[in-house]
Amino acid sequence: MEKEPIFDVHQLAHVEIYTPNPEGTLWFFRDLLGMEVTKQEGQSVYMRAYEDWYHHTLKITEAAKPGLGHVAWRTSSPQALERRVKALEASGLGKGWTDGDLGHGPAYRFTTPDGHLMEILWEVEYYQPPEDKKTPLLNRPQKRPLRGIPVRRLDHVNLMASDVRVNRTFMMDYLGFRLREQFVRNDGSEGGAWLSVSALTHELAFMFDGKGAKGRLHHVCYWYGYPHELNQIADVFREVGIKIEAGPGKHGISQALFLYAFEPGGNRVELFGDPGYLIFDPDWKPIRWDEESLYAGGAIWYGSPVPAEYFLYGTPEVEETAPVSGD
Amino acid sequence: MEKEPIFDVHQLAHVEIYTPNPEGTLWFFRDLLGMEVTKQEGQSVYMRAYEDWYHHTLKITEAAKPGLGHVAWRTSSPQALERRVKALEASGLGKGWTDGDLGHGPAYRFTTPDGHLMEILWEVEYYQPPEDKKTPLLNRPQKRPLRGIPVRRLDHVNLMASDVRVNRTFMMDYLGFRLREQFVRNDGSEGGAWLSVSALTHELAFMFDGKGAKGRLHHVCYWYGYPHELNQIADVFREVGIKIEAGPGKHGISQALFLYAFEPGGNRVELFGDPGYLIFDPDWKPIRWDEESLYAGGAIWYGSPVPAEYFLYGTPEVEETAPVSGD
Amino acid sequence: MEKEPIFDVHQLAHVEIYTPNPEGTLWFFRDLLGMEVTKQEGQSVYMRAYEDWYHHTLKITEAAKPGLGHVAWRTSSPQALERRVKALEASGLGKGWTDGDLGHGPAYRFTTPDGHLMEILWEVEYYQPPEDKKTPLLNRPQKRPLRGIPVRRLDHVNLMASDVRVNRTFMMDYLGFRLREQFVRNDGSEGGAWLSVSALTHELAFMFDGKGAKGRLHHVCYWYGYPHELNQIADVFREVGIKIEAGPGKHGISQALFLYAFEPGGNRVELFGDPGYLIFDPDWKPIRWDEESLYAGGAIWYGSPVPAEYFLYGTPEVEETAPVSGD
Amino acid sequence: MEKEPIFDVHQLAHVEIYTPNPEGTLWFFRDLLGMEVTKQEGQSVYMRAYEDWYHHTLKITEAAKPGLGHVAWRTSSPQALERRVKALEASGLGKGWTDGDLGHGPAYRFTTPDGHLMEILWEVEYYQPPEDKKTPLLNRPQKRPLRGIPVRRLDHVNLMASDVRVNRTFMMDYLGFRLREQFVRNDGSEGGAWLSVSALTHELAFMFDGKGAKGRLHHVCYWYGYPHELNQIADVFREVGIKIEAGPGKHGISQALFLYAFEPGGNRVELFGDPGYLIFDPDWKPIRWDEESLYAGGAIWYGSPVPAEYFLYGTPEVEETAPVSGD
Repeated sequence: MEKEPIFDVHQLAHVEIYTPNPEGTLWFFRDLLGMEVTKQEGQSVYMRAYEDWYHHTLKITEAAKPGLGHVAWRTSSPQALERRVKALEASGLGKGWTDGDLGHGPAYRFTTPDGHLMEILWEVEYYQPPEDKKTPLLNRPQKRPLRGIPVRRLDHVNLMASDVRVNRTFMMDYLGFRLREQFVRNDGSEGGAWLSVSALTHELAFMFDGKGAKGRLHHVCYWYGYPHELNQIADVFREVGIKIEAGPGKHGISQALFLYAFEPGGNRVELFGDPGYLIFDPDWKPIRWDEESLYAGGAIWYGSPVPAEYFLYGTPEVEETAPVSGD
Repeated sequence: MEKEPIFDVHQLAHVEIYTPNPEGTLWFFRDLLGMEVTKQEGQSVYMRAYEDWYHHTLKITEAAKPGLGHVAWRTSSPQALERRVKALEASGLGKGWTDGDLGHGPAYRFTTPDGHLMEILWEVEYYQPPEDKKTPLLNRPQKRPLRGIPVRRLDHVNLMASDVRVNRTFMMDYLGFRLREQFVRNDGSEGGAWLSVSALTHELAFMFDGKGAKGRLHHVCYWYGYPHELNQIADVFREVGIKIEAGPGKHGISQALFLYAFEPGGNRVELFGDPGYLIFDPDWKPIRWDEESLYAGGAIWYGSPVPAEYFLYGTPEVEETAPVSGD
Repeated sequence: MEKEPIFDVHQLAHVEIYTPNPEGTLWFFRDLLGMEVTKQEGQSVYMRAYEDWYHHTLKITEAAKPGLGHVAWRTSSPQALERRVKALEASGLGKGWTDGDLGHGPAYRFTTPDGHLMEILWEVEYYQPPEDKKTPLLNRPQKRPLRGIPVRRLDHVNLMASDVRVNRTFMMDYLGFRLREQFVRNDGSEGGAWLSVSALTHELAFMFDGKGAKGRLHHVCYWYGYPHELNQIADVFREVGIKIEAGPGKHGISQALFLYAFEPGGNRVELFGDPGYLIFDPDWKPIRWDEESLYAGGAIWYGSPVPAEYFLYGTPEVEETAPVSGD
Repeated sequence: MEKEPIFDVHQLAHVEIYTPNPEGTLWFFRDLLGMEVTKQEGQSVYMRAYEDWYHHTLKITEAAKPGLGHVAWRTSSPQALERRVKALEASGLGKGWTDGDLGHGPAYRFTTPDGHLMEILWEVEYYQPPEDKKTPLLNRPQKRPLRGIPVRRLDHVNLMASDVRVNRTFMMDYLGFRLREQFVRNDGSEGGAWLSVSALTHELAFMFDGKGAKGRLHHVCYWYGYPHELNQIADVFREVGIKIEAGPGKHGISQALFLYAFEPGGNRVELFGDPGYLIFDPDWKPIRWDEESLYAGGAIWYGSPVPAEYFLYGTPEVEETAPVSGD
């Protein structure tokens, strides 16, 4: 009988990104994507989408270059947190406890093999709406804002990796992530992996970094859940001069209707117009795309093809660091 | 420290419904909802939506009256199945093992306190598409049919209950269902409960049976995931004479865009145009609607109000069996 | 050989409504429907949707009671204006020239037989966007606002009539409106008429006033053109306390996806989520709904039925003035 | 005072296309686009969309090569037909009367300066639905088919021209078409012209033929009117192997949501997901795109850019016939 799945990591809690253009980045998330500012403190702004329940899902921190600050995961229970900390300590990639931050309690920090900073935690602070933002729709933490084309919640984060297999295996072995889809090149090397701890096809993806770099951010994704919102935000992006990299279109991988754009700080942001397909099969066999099937429908099922930069551009920008194989 | 959640039941696997009009019911699911027939055998037809991965998610069985045959749940592992069977045996509502059916292996049968027949199982048979139904979209088990307005997958089942609290507590205690939303009347009695084992707001709901009956089916729900499909199927229903009970509209509870109609056998069917909101918080506090808030936005957030029959009609039809309080 | 159609009236140019709550009405159109204020002068505010090309399409004027100010039509040429003025003078319902208003030149005023005030004109002032509202989408007069769920353009006006036949015949005979659809009761009396001078099913409708009054406004309609916007604005209306009278749903008459709500001044406003069907047949035979077919699909093809008040409530409100037949 | 507009041509009545693969072409329009066959006779099939009122809007004729058969326009009255025939006779491009075809009466044939064959007519035969296709939605000629993703009506035709200015001026001067949008290169030559006789931005477009050829077809367009249908048909096209050239995306010119694909006979087909913006201004100033603004948003406002072949491929295919300037 096979080993049972681990259900200890439960949710993508928040993502921190760096920006050299804090004003521009704030304008993008607040005025275009309709997100709410919970708190501005020091060099950071804490934001959430209107259907995010916690204090924040996005922390924007001023920095010399754009890129990933950290990714935070919430466990399914305090006990689960203990178990995962033990596993991470054994992994050699644990970095120890922090006292927490605005919006959450103690967090255990670690990195992926490539060095992306992450943390797991249990205690969170819930968003409390002021009187004028309360809604009779009790399962929504606040009214839908009347500003921009408001996203509804954080969906996933996509990280570039110098070695996809090593990084995704780490997340699977030590944290219980399930592999949902993957791109495996004809030479057996992995080009991408999509992983989740829920019915979503992914809260976390690793994509091969075409520049051979380590620790870069490919994109953060927020969710609309309604396909037509992608048309509306695309209209807005075009009018205000935000560069659309690809979409609106439909991914083969995940089946989601999507749009990629760059926020003024330089980070790539994805928007999802629907959940794509959801996975409920407890015995899911990962979907394996090879070079032929990927081009027949994997990355882009319909709509604009992604440009070559899609596989090369991440934040921060880097020089090509090494000869890269299998790309 | 609180008890940890139970993650043993993982998925709504299939639902069996009875119909006195098998031809009409088949036409409804196949020609209008675009579902596929896997097998026709004896008095039953086994069907699936084009994104359902298993042999079937719907079994239609000829019977004198419409209503619920049974509901099947898949566990998260063989070990989880063993644990749940032990729990069910202890509950006094276990009925023992069956050898299985077309499309799945051994199943342990039990009933809710109200007598709705259910089963849990691990072994399932996956659908194998013939050559002409294979699709380059590898995460889809077959091509989208070119017939009707095809639903994509089974979503949930809603059962009428003589006592909502007793039935939902049973599912929570013995099977690990989490309570997501509930309607509690001013006198403390429960009018409805929405439960899930995944990020969906519910795979299972109990609604108070306004006629005081036990074991009736309120509705089975299939999923489109795209809001506009509800407009298309509503157009079709009107043209071919299928009665729409309510919608397209938006539920407050679940936030889903929905439509209710009656299939020719008499069973109520719901269609979902989006997933509503999804729940990722591992420490979710159930949303509690009372009589005031329910009417302010619970059952119907916008769109047609449900008629009085919504709370009284279930399958099979019954005479009013007892004076009913709090309704 | 039949008489040729008259193509002299070309467009619904603007509508003036009265409101006893100018602040509330302004908030509704500006903050919820995302309309733009061109000018505020005296007791009036001049507004336009972001794809309206002229100075304004809506004039909101403070008054003791809500209701219709006037309706303005633009002719297809200066010559066409002369011809129509001559016809109107002959009709006995002409009221003479005005010097115009903000946003347009001389206008010839007249009333319908029921006394609804109208005008026809040729000279209009075009909206000139300030630098920061200019858009690279050259066929759009300004950027899409980032406020509310912005409507795109004025669509039509619906007037209540004490005698539908008399009023619609006047508009057809003297101004060249074509009858597109109508509701004729079994006793031969007319319950409603939908008229247009373009491919739209109507820029003008008359509905029988169930209270037997004359000159009342049923509703003004603005256009989204995208079905999903109706879901978004319905969500907003529910959260901010705007009463939705019916919808989102689909009309049989016009086939349009619609929503009815009341602005804070008391006037009914309709929103269209698509154009419905368009009429290009130059020899169109009016669609005639009778009492049976109307209830089988005319007023509401799917979605919420309209409440009884739909046929009785207009602005300003009136006491029932006369016994009403055939209603 | 300016000359009045001519309102004599009223509607795009039908289009005939040639196909070397009649079976494949029929499958495309019937099984994928859900169109209906009115009649199959000789080498031709007569088809219509389910909201087309006439006998047919598409005639598919077997031929050695794909391309345009002819385009038919309906006038606004019999008198208007007489007037236009007189004008065409004077133009030198009239070819005389034909007795008509299945579905319509006498038609006067002419060509554009480039030789595209056209006809104008008044008498048409209306589609008569058999009993089982009648719908309670009286403004729809028949029930929505339950096959494919059914288009609703013919929208427009786009013709390639060796000289855009000459061809569009002919249609304006002799037939009263209004110029709605145009692309004028920096050297003053015209790259494209969009013309209409109704509120649509175009029933007819001319695009510069990058190969310098005359008389070729760029595409025929059918209309959904609902944006999401483009996602559904794109899904289908990908699964059955129909090549999508571009889209779903949004045009700047016309603002319409669109998709381009090739039917198995080789002709390009466009599908519209909404009407784009509609033109009601009787004094419309043509939108003029230059080389800069066109690339900033004209051809493609968002979504996939069109490939180079878009400007070169037409039916029938030709060798490059002449050095081409200004392209």
